[in-house]
Amino acid sequence: MPSTRRRFLSATATGAAAALAAPALAAPAVARARRTWRMATSWPKNAPGPGTTAARLAQRLTALSDGRLAVELHAAGELVPALEVFDAVAAGTVEMGHSAALFWAGKMPSAPYFTAVPFGLLPEGHDAWLTAGGGQALWDELYGAFGVKPFAAGNSGIQMGGWYKRPIAGLDDLAGLRVRMPGLGGEVLRRLGAAPVTLPPGEIFAALSGGAIDGAEFLGPWQDLALGLHKAAGHYLWPGWHEPNGSAEALVNAEAYAALPADLQELVAACCEAENRHGPAEAEWRNAQALAKLQEMPEVELRAWPAAVLAAARRESEGVLSDLAQTSGLDRRIRESYAAAKDTLLPWARVGRHALLGAQIGA
Amino acid sequence: MPSTRRRFLSATATGAAAALAAPALAAPAVARARRTWRMATSWPKNAPGPGTTAARLAQRLTALSDGRLAVELHAAGELVPALEVFDAVAAGTVEMGHSAALFWAGKMPSAPYFTAVPFGLLPEGHDAWLTAGGGQALWDELYGAFGVKPFAAGNSGIQMGGWYKRPIAGLDDLAGLRVRMPGLGGEVLRRLGAAPVTLPPGEIFAALSGGAIDGAEFLGPWQDLALGLHKAAGHYLWPGWHEPNGSAEALVNAEAYAALPADLQELVAACCEAENRHGPAEAEWRNAQALAKLQEMPEVELRAWPAAVLAAARRESEGVLSDLAQTSGLDRRIRESYAAAKDTLLPWARVGRHALLGAQIGA
Repeated sequence: MPSTRRRFLSATATGAAAALAAPALAAPAVARARRTWRMATSWPKNAPGPGTTAARLAQRLTALSDGRLAVELHAAGELVPALEVFDAVAAGTVEMGHSAALFWAGKMPSAPYFTAVPFGLLPEGHDAWLTAGGGQALWDELYGAFGVKPFAAGNSGIQMGGWYKRPIAGLDDLAGLRVRMPGLGGEVLRRLGAAPVTLPPGEIFAALSGGAIDGAEFLGPWQDLALGLHKAAGHYLWPGWHEPNGSAEALVNAEAYAALPADLQELVAACCEAENRHGPAEAEWRNAQALAKLQEMPEVELRAWPAAVLAAARRESEGVLSDLAQTSGLDRRIRESYAAAKDTLLPWARVGRHALLGAQIGA
Repeated sequence: MPSTRRRFLSATATGAAAALAAPALAAPAVARARRTWRMATSWPKNAPGPGTTAARLAQRLTALSDGRLAVELHAAGELVPALEVFDAVAAGTVEMGHSAALFWAGKMPSAPYFTAVPFGLLPEGHDAWLTAGGGQALWDELYGAFGVKPFAAGNSGIQMGGWYKRPIAGLDDLAGLRVRMPGLGGEVLRRLGAAPVTLPPGEIFAALSGGAIDGAEFLGPWQDLALGLHKAAGHYLWPGWHEPNGSAEALVNAEAYAALPADLQELVAACCEAENRHGPAEAEWRNAQALAKLQEMPEVELRAWPAAVLAAARRESEGVLSDLAQTSGLDRRIRESYAAAKDTLLPWARVGRHALLGAQIGA
């Protein structure tokens, strides 16, 4: 975009700072189109993490578009139920949504790849795959069939392995264990002999506390502490191998997106990308603070998953992912692209991030 | 921002997608101020990583401000030399700069904390400290004394430990070793008996190749491969403990920033934040690809720093950072905040990121 006014500073000017505050010249007035979009979300209003991300995204788009794209935030249930956000965006009932890809596994078996799969990519690897490794094009193709344009938008980061009433010392302890672990992680546990159950977040504490289940995973220490799970079960297992990434997604109706001028399309992309840094940076800090609090509680036992369980879970995860990929050509291409990204990224993580963290923690 | 036009979709509308593409109503025309900012950078134009980040940042601000803030990109040397960007922004010679905090260690001994210090925070921890752990306020205070407002803007990610002509098997092998390692990492090496030297990137290959130095670190595999360092020395050491993070910075003249309307101030912040995700995601991918290429070359020996060297370097790093903090109250507060952030974040990294990566690579 060419400069439209005389440059008022020269490269060699001294004491020019005062001039910087001088009022800029007025540009010719132009008529500009205004739009209002409604954003349906899968979260309670301002739920820490995804809820605050959705709120910040709506606020930023409204503020930064200079009045041309006002985005109204709607909590889960206000316009559509939490798990109908994708369909509402696809149908054009709302122009925009904020949710998570793994919720749509029933409609698209490969959708969880765009949030997390067991033993899959961590946040930095997930974003590398999307940004530079071909992941975004596959995601566009998967959702594009429904008239939806997806963006990664926020990330709750790394998780923990959940809260258990009894110690888990080996594979035998999983037999018949009733564990709240939804999705692909739950299927891995099932293949290891456990009895996974699916419960909405609001019902986890009561089920664990009352003994209806023996264990439960939710998210990281930040949200787990808020839910009070440490008061219902004392053994806190790490790491959260079942979901090593927590990307949220912004969904935009493809026709609404196509109708935007190019600069507003780019604004949507930029604000989502900003959220991909802001969200995980905040989560990293809050999770670390919450973990420190939990470690001070005498009733909390922080324990690693036994090596034999981790190794078996890793093996079963391969099988679970292979089974997903049988359904169509696109599913297979997504699986192969993701697996190739992991093969590319892990050797670098070994000599970089893993080694550096190891040197710092004395591992 | 309230909606200014009739809502044209109802929550229960069906087949409403076609309506989404309908032209929006024209808003009243308003006169809007236009500005042109010049951005001086410390990089050659489009240098992969920081250079492309600076270019994208200038392009995005220009495009997304709808013509109200045009940012002109200038490569190192076009307006001011690479290492005078901070002074130019402070003096108002240019409104904006793109550089790296560690370049200003001569002016502000604590500046390297806002890029990287030996055995310091990794990218995800660095951003957590800035975003939620108090780091940004300290950075604002440090640069604010010079009339400069800083933003993290891009990140070249994790580095390697450099290229060496002979194997490094223990501390004895460091005695008298001439290594290109500038800054605090070089000072650590000096305390371990080596002879660190500082060379600009363009001179590293010739010095290493011709035998004027025995080893050299630059960045990660992506940029190291581009510089051809593997043709000058065959032992490639990991990890890059001397600079575990690669944050770039956007510098804005404080008066120019204060003169912006609130939405453009927020746009600058949002575009910088987006770059904090885009930059490292791209670097993660390119580094992984370059490492794979290097590993296929028979002349390249990928080796870990010996445990004794790592342990000694970690000890000496403490001393180097302690010495930095003696100069003023703000320096001491920066050091204490950073050290506290590390203490908070590392236990979480141990049970989260480090454990997950370990489970995946079989460590």
